[in-house]
Amino acid sequence: MSMKKNKYESLLEPLQQELSNVARWLQHTGKRLVIVFEGRDAAGKGGSIHAIAQRLNPRQVRVAALAKPTERERTQWYFQRYAGQLPAAGECVMFDRSWYNRAGVERVMGYCTPAEYALFLQQVPLFERMLVEDGILLFKYWLAVDQEEQEARFAERAQDPLKRWKLSPIDLEARRLYAEYGRARDAMLRASHTRHAPWHIVDFNDQRRGRLNLIRHLLEHVPDVALAAETLKLPPLGHAPLAERYTTKIKPIRSYY
Amino acid sequence: MSMKKNKYESLLEPLQQELSNVARWLQHTGKRLVIVFEGRDAAGKGGSIHAIAQRLNPRQVRVAALAKPTERERTQWYFQRYAGQLPAAGECVMFDRSWYNRAGVERVMGYCTPAEYALFLQQVPLFERMLVEDGILLFKYWLAVDQEEQEARFAERAQDPLKRWKLSPIDLEARRLYAEYGRARDAMLRASHTRHAPWHIVDFNDQRRGRLNLIRHLLEHVPDVALAAETLKLPPLGHAPLAERYTTKIKPIRSYY
Amino acid sequence: MSMKKNKYESLLEPLQQELSNVARWLQHTGKRLVIVFEGRDAAGKGGSIHAIAQRLNPRQVRVAALAKPTERERTQWYFQRYAGQLPAAGECVMFDRSWYNRAGVERVMGYCTPAEYALFLQQVPLFERMLVEDGILLFKYWLAVDQEEQEARFAERAQDPLKRWKLSPIDLEARRLYAEYGRARDAMLRASHTRHAPWHIVDFNDQRRGRLNLIRHLLEHVPDVALAAETLKLPPLGHAPLAERYTTKIKPIRSYY
Amino acid sequence: MSMKKNKYESLLEPLQQELSNVARWLQHTGKRLVIVFEGRDAAGKGGSIHAIAQRLNPRQVRVAALAKPTERERTQWYFQRYAGQLPAAGECVMFDRSWYNRAGVERVMGYCTPAEYALFLQQVPLFERMLVEDGILLFKYWLAVDQEEQEARFAERAQDPLKRWKLSPIDLEARRLYAEYGRARDAMLRASHTRHAPWHIVDFNDQRRGRLNLIRHLLEHVPDVALAAETLKLPPLGHAPLAERYTTKIKPIRSYY
Repeated sequence: MSMKKNKYESLLEPLQQELSNVARWLQHTGKRLVIVFEGRDAAGKGGSIHAIAQRLNPRQVRVAALAKPTERERTQWYFQRYAGQLPAAGECVMFDRSWYNRAGVERVMGYCTPAEYALFLQQVPLFERMLVEDGILLFKYWLAVDQEEQEARFAERAQDPLKRWKLSPIDLEARRLYAEYGRARDAMLRASHTRHAPWHIVDFNDQRRGRLNLIRHLLEHVPDVALAAETLKLPPLGHAPLAERYTTKIKPIRSYY
Repeated sequence: MSMKKNKYESLLEPLQQELSNVARWLQHTGKRLVIVFEGRDAAGKGGSIHAIAQRLNPRQVRVAALAKPTERERTQWYFQRYAGQLPAAGECVMFDRSWYNRAGVERVMGYCTPAEYALFLQQVPLFERMLVEDGILLFKYWLAVDQEEQEARFAERAQDPLKRWKLSPIDLEARRLYAEYGRARDAMLRASHTRHAPWHIVDFNDQRRGRLNLIRHLLEHVPDVALAAETLKLPPLGHAPLAERYTTKIKPIRSYY
Repeated sequence: MSMKKNKYESLLEPLQQELSNVARWLQHTGKRLVIVFEGRDAAGKGGSIHAIAQRLNPRQVRVAALAKPTERERTQWYFQRYAGQLPAAGECVMFDRSWYNRAGVERVMGYCTPAEYALFLQQVPLFERMLVEDGILLFKYWLAVDQEEQEARFAERAQDPLKRWKLSPIDLEARRLYAEYGRARDAMLRASHTRHAPWHIVDFNDQRRGRLNLIRHLLEHVPDVALAAETLKLPPLGHAPLAERYTTKIKPIRSYY
Repeated sequence: MSMKKNKYESLLEPLQQELSNVARWLQHTGKRLVIVFEGRDAAGKGGSIHAIAQRLNPRQVRVAALAKPTERERTQWYFQRYAGQLPAAGECVMFDRSWYNRAGVERVMGYCTPAEYALFLQQVPLFERMLVEDGILLFKYWLAVDQEEQEARFAERAQDPLKRWKLSPIDLEARRLYAEYGRARDAMLRASHTRHAPWHIVDFNDQRRGRLNLIRHLLEHVPDVALAAETLKLPPLGHAPLAERYTTKIKPIRSYY
């Protein structure tokens, strides 16, 4: 049975607090964090990224959701445009889909050649090992959803105008090619589930539970981030709060609500 | 009196639906949208951006929250690093603070010279006119909050560990320099409130009401975006939903919840 | 009569020395220099850039020879990709063709719409004024060549395999459209020959003479760059020069010459 | 005995012609070429790059001479900023110093930690293998010069104002640390001379001979690039060459020569 919203929110709150500690720790230590989100269409990548980023500093925590490559990019080193997105000291970058596109949609839909695909499976562990050895904390999550649940979500997207954009022609193909995508995923997991950069599969048949589990897992696997709690006491203002006053003639917009 | 969460959410929902239409329209027409968010510290920029982005495609709608410039960037053309963030066809970019830094924090804290400041005030209308004439839809919002309310939010940030990161030493200075910031804002409004790129001031003493008003204002000022409603009917799957099955030995992570 | 190679080289040498002073002065003062090279095909842009860059530090003096825009770039703000190439403190950037493409080849060949063209002519003086007011030293040279001489160079390019790459299908069109290109050039000069960023026309019917004149003109119009001559005396080595010795087994390549 | 200029130029000419064929072949096949130039200070990297680039299309053949990293870049994945410079289809990029900085100047001058250095030596063969497997043609040249010759060049640089910029304080240190640089070079060669990306040592005690040998070596090791010779015959112009005529009042600059 799916988790109720109220319960979800009360469970999420303390996790977001811990994420905030992690962010503070990154800042303090200059560590870098990369989180890769992959999974079936409609599994819940966007919502999870959202739940993590929501309360954090956007100048520190960034989402990399790359558009499809330009013609020029398509001829460059495959990892080049992803490498350009990697974090600097203290930053966290969350990849909403990632270099694993090549092992998923590109493979199944035939957007890359078999040779490019084979090369990717061979290079991806090396690429990731270089990042990890360079000191980047790398987490890779696969968000799993059964077809029955996926069908329900597709149906909702088809009907709900707010979610219509999430349903692309490629998604419709993905329904037809559900089994092929499963095989591609397994080949990918086999090739890239390594000691330095293991995959973590998370059950997202219940999205709220999935998000909580993913975040909790992340928090348990980040190195110990305890920092002496900063206490902060604001000095008194020393005068009555000032009234906002404009010396221009620009009027505030009307209040609709 | 501040708006209740339930009411807020029920009012936000239809606005997000309209935003979704705008996004579809951008995609369709190749139009580009830039939204600039400026305002007092703690006014509510991040939350507003969030409310807009939440249900939209991250590959289409991007947040530009630039870190402070590197030493090299500091010597380049002032608008250069912002120009690099401008949208391509069909995209929306929301600036969480923007080139107006020079007229706010840089001015008040003395991070730029008076000459650089004067030059900025002179160039910014030209820069924006070039973008607008190039076809970019440009909206600039100033989020207003009285010091009494700002003080309450600062106090909350000081106490709430989840919000601690939002309180920087510069914010503490901002309390002391509240009046100076007000004067800087007015000089900025005077110099850059132009016919092609006017400022819109939004009262954010109640954050929820502020967000709703801002979004509603935006929606009313975007050109008519009505697109024939796409009806979409999923073809039947043609077989029972497939069970997810892994051929690797990687086990899902434990369920904590 | 065209200048002899020996004479050219002996005249170029002292100019390059002065260019070296300019570079040192840029470094010292943090000034930025932009030189725009435009002109008829085969006029001699590449050779001129070469003559300037040849003896200077490539980490300081850069050539921006942008490839044709990607599809994505074509939908962005027209000046965006050029703005990304502008110099930081102490640098010089030479544009081998530039944003003026829009007023030349794009105009004549119909690669942009009349509205885009008109907008460019209107915006380019503003864009350049912003750069100049920002402190960038901007020089714009038009390299002029008569069709008779251009024909001779085209013929040489057609025959000389080393120069074949310089002859593109667009160049062949340029022969046919010589008069149109002339008209486009004049419209461009009229729109963009401004007080802060004037055009300088240089006769390149004799390439060597053209280069010398261009460089000399540049040197005469850069602000006074006299810096106290640095005298530098190497301290004695203190021992006999060491013999190069390798502890690996890699052998030098064979000497062909 | 060092090669005479006349002889050098007559030998260089046919090599540049072959380079031009290589460039045409790159264009045709979409292949990518990377050439890394490393070596002792004053060995002749710049001049060699120059001799190669001189007659080729700057839109196709690029020099990557990166400035020292910004503070932000210094905290990113070490190879990140170099990866951003790699060629797209049909392009050639020549690195005037490269990622090997870490094994040379950074090592000897202590600009990186021993751990960073050790990691670099371990990662560089993997990084290069990824590029080569991706289809990039990678050539690495070490330009060798004995200290006696190097001393002579340093002395010339100290005296010749045109060459003064080539002499930095770090170069002066390099004289003192000649032996250390030699050891660092050998450690580098040992770690990174691999089957897929071997080093080629070229004797540059005579710069002209060195350049010719390097280019000849490159030409002999590029895959067979023979393309059916394009014959190109210009169609007749059909009218007398047009006289250049300006309809603006801008006068050509004065002729100094």
